[in-house]
Amino acid sequence: MVRGRPREEGIDDAVREAVRALLTETGYQRCTIDAVAARAGVGKAAVYRRWRSKAELVFAAVIHPVDLEPPEDTGSLRGDVEAVLGDIESSLDGVEVRHALPSLLADVRADPALEARFAEVFLGRELGYLVRMLDRAVARGELSRRPEPALVHAILLGPVLTWLHLFAEPVPSGGLAAALASPLHAAVVALDV
Amino acid sequence: MVRGRPREEGIDDAVREAVRALLTETGYQRCTIDAVAARAGVGKAAVYRRWRSKAELVFAAVIHPVDLEPPEDTGSLRGDVEAVLGDIESSLDGVEVRHALPSLLADVRADPALEARFAEVFLGRELGYLVRMLDRAVARGELSRRPEPALVHAILLGPVLTWLHLFAEPVPSGGLAAALASPLHAAVVALDV
Repeated sequence: MVRGRPREEGIDDAVREAVRALLTETGYQRCTIDAVAARAGVGKAAVYRRWRSKAELVFAAVIHPVDLEPPEDTGSLRGDVEAVLGDIESSLDGVEVRHALPSLLADVRADPALEARFAEVFLGRELGYLVRMLDRAVARGELSRRPEPALVHAILLGPVLTWLHLFAEPVPSGGLAAALASPLHAAVVALDV
Repeated sequence: MVRGRPREEGIDDAVREAVRALLTETGYQRCTIDAVAARAGVGKAAVYRRWRSKAELVFAAVIHPVDLEPPEDTGSLRGDVEAVLGDIESSLDGVEVRHALPSLLADVRADPALEARFAEVFLGRELGYLVRMLDRAVARGELSRRPEPALVHAILLGPVLTWLHLFAEPVPSGGLAAALASPLHAAVVALDV
């Protein structure tokens, strides 16, 4: 397929599409930065300017970008928890992420510099948004003080990640976020003692 | 190192030690069934009689055996949740499991027959024990009926797995099981509505 080079602002989209297509067609191992650049019709330098490693590129393309949207303020902690769970569920669901995630985590685990960057760029961004959600709940009087954000992060992300990526079961009818919102809201409230 | 063949009843232990040593020394990729059998000083046939695949062998050696010990009855659901979390934490903690798990999950994900067997043998066993724990809580009057066991499984396993295998943070002082017992007990109780 021959096509022109995407303009600067179209590069992110072209790269994201190329990653998703290559993961489906050839798998994680063969979805290299060279292959992505060729498929997207962009220069390798343009790819490396944006993402420092293949793991980062794949994470941003299939899970969530570095500039993740902040979670909405629904007016209550219960609503905010369900909205965050919905964001986590939609970012972790899908055949590309299902196939890419274990290999991606193996790459990250094998390289301490990559692990540190991954923690800072992706997990750090998620954590920052949970801090906002918790501070809103404190401001509303729903929590007396902000619980440890990393525990809240594990409590909200863990069950969704485990269901979608470890269990081979269909999601409960109505979706995982709806099924988990009440119990995990209760868990966050129970941290406030 | 030359040593005699372990007697039948010592094979499991010899294989487990060989897997752990090879994972540390050479990593998951090179921890093959051949290498494990040679290191343990047992025949390959003896290894294949017990475990159908490398992924199964590694899981049983570093995470938990097929004949997992049932969780203790502590007399309350709160206590049982903390005991189960402690079992999960100790089975998922440690440098071998930290390095092996992503590659192991990538292998399982890539092979539907292996995935089905993994779900049956390991996850199925864990789920069966959670059903016992929940039924005890119903018998004590702590829950009105048994909540969906797969949701409880995701709620208890997910946060521990996520903290130990995704976050690069030290465990809270006192341990993860102690920090998560109250919030996750509240989550299980909140499923009972």
